[in-house]
Amino acid sequence: MIKILVDAMGGDNAPQATVAGACLAAEKDKELYIILTGRKDEVQTELNKHKYDKSRFEIVDCPDVVDMNDIPTEAVRKKDSSLIRGFWMLKKEEDICALVTAGSTGATIAGGQLILGRIRGVKRPALCAGIPNSRGGVTLLCDCGANAECKIEMLCQFAILASAYAKAGFGIQNPRIGLLNNGTEEHKGDPLRQQTYQCLKQLNGINFAGNAEGRDIMLGDFDAVIADGFSGNVALKSMEGCGKLVLGVMKKEFSSSLSSKIGYLFMRKAIKRMRGQLDFDKAGGALLVGLKKPVIKSHGSSKPETIAASIANAATVHRNALIPAIDKLLEESGIDRLSEIINVGE
Amino acid sequence: MIKILVDAMGGDNAPQATVAGACLAAEKDKELYIILTGRKDEVQTELNKHKYDKSRFEIVDCPDVVDMNDIPTEAVRKKDSSLIRGFWMLKKEEDICALVTAGSTGATIAGGQLILGRIRGVKRPALCAGIPNSRGGVTLLCDCGANAECKIEMLCQFAILASAYAKAGFGIQNPRIGLLNNGTEEHKGDPLRQQTYQCLKQLNGINFAGNAEGRDIMLGDFDAVIADGFSGNVALKSMEGCGKLVLGVMKKEFSSSLSSKIGYLFMRKAIKRMRGQLDFDKAGGALLVGLKKPVIKSHGSSKPETIAASIANAATVHRNALIPAIDKLLEESGIDRLSEIINVGE
Repeated sequence: MIKILVDAMGGDNAPQATVAGACLAAEKDKELYIILTGRKDEVQTELNKHKYDKSRFEIVDCPDVVDMNDIPTEAVRKKDSSLIRGFWMLKKEEDICALVTAGSTGATIAGGQLILGRIRGVKRPALCAGIPNSRGGVTLLCDCGANAECKIEMLCQFAILASAYAKAGFGIQNPRIGLLNNGTEEHKGDPLRQQTYQCLKQLNGINFAGNAEGRDIMLGDFDAVIADGFSGNVALKSMEGCGKLVLGVMKKEFSSSLSSKIGYLFMRKAIKRMRGQLDFDKAGGALLVGLKKPVIKSHGSSKPETIAASIANAATVHRNALIPAIDKLLEESGIDRLSEIINVGE
Repeated sequence: MIKILVDAMGGDNAPQATVAGACLAAEKDKELYIILTGRKDEVQTELNKHKYDKSRFEIVDCPDVVDMNDIPTEAVRKKDSSLIRGFWMLKKEEDICALVTAGSTGATIAGGQLILGRIRGVKRPALCAGIPNSRGGVTLLCDCGANAECKIEMLCQFAILASAYAKAGFGIQNPRIGLLNNGTEEHKGDPLRQQTYQCLKQLNGINFAGNAEGRDIMLGDFDAVIADGFSGNVALKSMEGCGKLVLGVMKKEFSSSLSSKIGYLFMRKAIKRMRGQLDFDKAGGALLVGLKKPVIKSHGSSKPETIAASIANAATVHRNALIPAIDKLLEESGIDRLSEIINVGE
């Protein structure tokens, strides 16, 4: 049995979308046991709208809710909120495997660091999202928003974290790691990028494949691209914006004339596949990686399918023992021995 | 008469595309006088393939070419190359209005700074590209690659430069300026962004409209988004990558079955319009803004249409007196009086 906590009150469409997503996930994966944190009555009302296996669902009543306007460090003090109660349970109850939330990103990062805690040796957890790529799979982008300012050691650790996640979450055996930069040549970028490049080359157990430009996230043959949380966030949102523009223009153009409408009827399937290949929620939410247990942050606007994908993803990384794998890779990588380069650089 | 220099040897498709583009531009705008720099025989051979008005074309023989592998500061010494000769002519001959090149970005920036020179008071020139947006126009992104590391004063100057360009190049009267950041709230971002935000609020003559996220470049209602050259470059290339992925998937899917192919016939026009709205070369190349005369850097892979758009754009900013407008706005903005904030920040 895989016990997963779901913050039933997190996100714009909660608790409808969160509960529906949990039911969807539990139906697909019979090994799942779902703990929903939230206002009991509201959550039960939503649950009753679905057929669900009562023996695999549990509601933990949490009268409070973390608001999107709460300052993260203050949100962490809301012990009776669905999100923060979730973090405390995740920390204390050994048999709970993971937490999924579509709530406030800031509060999730704060809860992860201050309550659950980091894996030994990890400086800062990172948000690691799966971006759809031209191969029909996903390229991980790590960090895409948790740490606006990064140092060499953090970027190197992100490479280790993302590498372990690519393996445990997506079955990629020897994931190709890129460093997000403003050009592909070795000397490109600011001193942070130049020095990180040299360190990444020397890490053991990491298949460092050089610099990646913005376009390589979706088009290149990298399995994970490493970035500081500022430029990673800019990249993620720039791609999302472009994707949305395309879908918007498509929708408008495809109903712009009778001829287009007829054409659409013939192309429905192709267009559906196209939308699927551009789906930024394909892999569910972003994994907040580097914590003692998997925490997945789904989009605030998550639909039931996105929540279900996030839960499925949490189950996968648990099954494939992501956390011990990170421990091992951190140890093997020899990142400690790089402290000389790192200290000179910083 | 508007005299524009075109580096006939710059870019992957030179001199075919550059010469064809110059002919296209000259045909559309009878006021243009084109000076092509490059290997005379090769350029003349290309010119002969087109109908062109001999009285408005001139070739300046340059036996040398700047290579993409040349280190920028060394490229600048190639005085007989089509690009560097262009820069010297632009500097020395008062009646030449602008330079268009699809050659090396690094050499173009170096030539601009070291030969042509900056406008008085401008710290560093910036690459300012026009990104297609959801309103059917373009949003300027400044800087998108010239300066990997930026200080507060540079970002504030970019706002002034981009504002003047939006007005002179695209007829936008009171351009809305955004600061590229990892969130929209005022306190977001690293110290550089937080301090720049405060400075931008205080600049005169600039319509600062707050922080812009990556997605707002294509979807928001900003006319120009200000960025350091590193994250601006990441944003630009991330959007280009997404756009290319979409067009690739579309091409594949639309020929994937008989039904799709039939549908395509009905939708040809709509799809063509869609491609048009996603065209990153809509405005031609990026303006290297902050120099004493307009210099436009077109994509290395520029087609004749892109070169023609770049030339037309150069003519427009000349007609609308961009350079004096920058001078005036720099003066009016009161950026000098902000030195206290700026110096505390840096």
